[in-house]
Amino acid sequence: MKVMVGGTFDPIHDGHKALLSRSFELAGRDGHVVIGLTTDTFASRKTHPIRPFEERRRELERFITGKQFRATWLIEPLNDRYGSATDADFDAIIVSEETLPVAVEINKLRRGHGKKKVDIHQISCVLAEDGRWISSTRIYRGEIDIHGRVIR
Amino acid sequence: MKVMVGGTFDPIHDGHKALLSRSFELAGRDGHVVIGLTTDTFASRKTHPIRPFEERRRELERFITGKQFRATWLIEPLNDRYGSATDADFDAIIVSEETLPVAVEINKLRRGHGKKKVDIHQISCVLAEDGRWISSTRIYRGEIDIHGRVIR
Repeated sequence: MKVMVGGTFDPIHDGHKALLSRSFELAGRDGHVVIGLTTDTFASRKTHPIRPFEERRRELERFITGKQFRATWLIEPLNDRYGSATDADFDAIIVSEETLPVAVEINKLRRGHGKKKVDIHQISCVLAEDGRWISSTRIYRGEIDIHGRVIR
Repeated sequence: MKVMVGGTFDPIHDGHKALLSRSFELAGRDGHVVIGLTTDTFASRKTHPIRPFEERRRELERFITGKQFRATWLIEPLNDRYGSATDADFDAIIVSEETLPVAVEINKLRRGHGKKKVDIHQISCVLAEDGRWISSTRIYRGEIDIHGRVIR
């Protein structure tokens, strides 16, 4: 099946890895995964500095090619919360707990555009050692590393 | 992976078939699917009469055994909206658009019980010929058949 997933992926932490791995697993061996990667303009609304798109894309490509995923894949620039998901033909969108509302919204917009609603797969956030979510913000702040290990 | 799904399944319509097929697909060849089947007492809150548990269970078993699903499976009586999902060890719950809030609630309860949250897979409802959802109530009313074909 064809699935879509999105993010800023800076840096790629264990939560992102779970999200991406589950996306490829859902797509299956003959499937296709579209990964929306936020553009620098869109990502600039984050509360902490973000590495440039090309650098984030290279890291994402390195992670994906390093795995034994069977599905084909494509990285697409994401200029807003929805990207091409409101109109593209695909089967399922993969989101985290934080972005579940965006997926529900995408289905509403699809309906308005006369498009078939897609399945929504929400993965549970990966917890850090301290029982709180792993997030880029926490990594940036130096609280945890990309595996969720507490730094101080 | 181990997944859970639930319903009254009376009668098994194309929406249920999509829900069950996706559950087995997600579980994968080495996976396990637990199907919660509402008890007669719990199902009696529906607005229309429901066939007895044993009859519904036999129809469910016939549907599952008639497919080439690889995962193992088990039918469990469901006495309330949650069943064993608030405490069992499993990976993902499969719900329809109508029951997404129940899955979110289950994860909250799991958290409270010190259990790992599970992934939530929401499948899009299957539409009848008239563009509205296929549902047991509409079938009972004689508006559509189990494939969503309009009867009158």
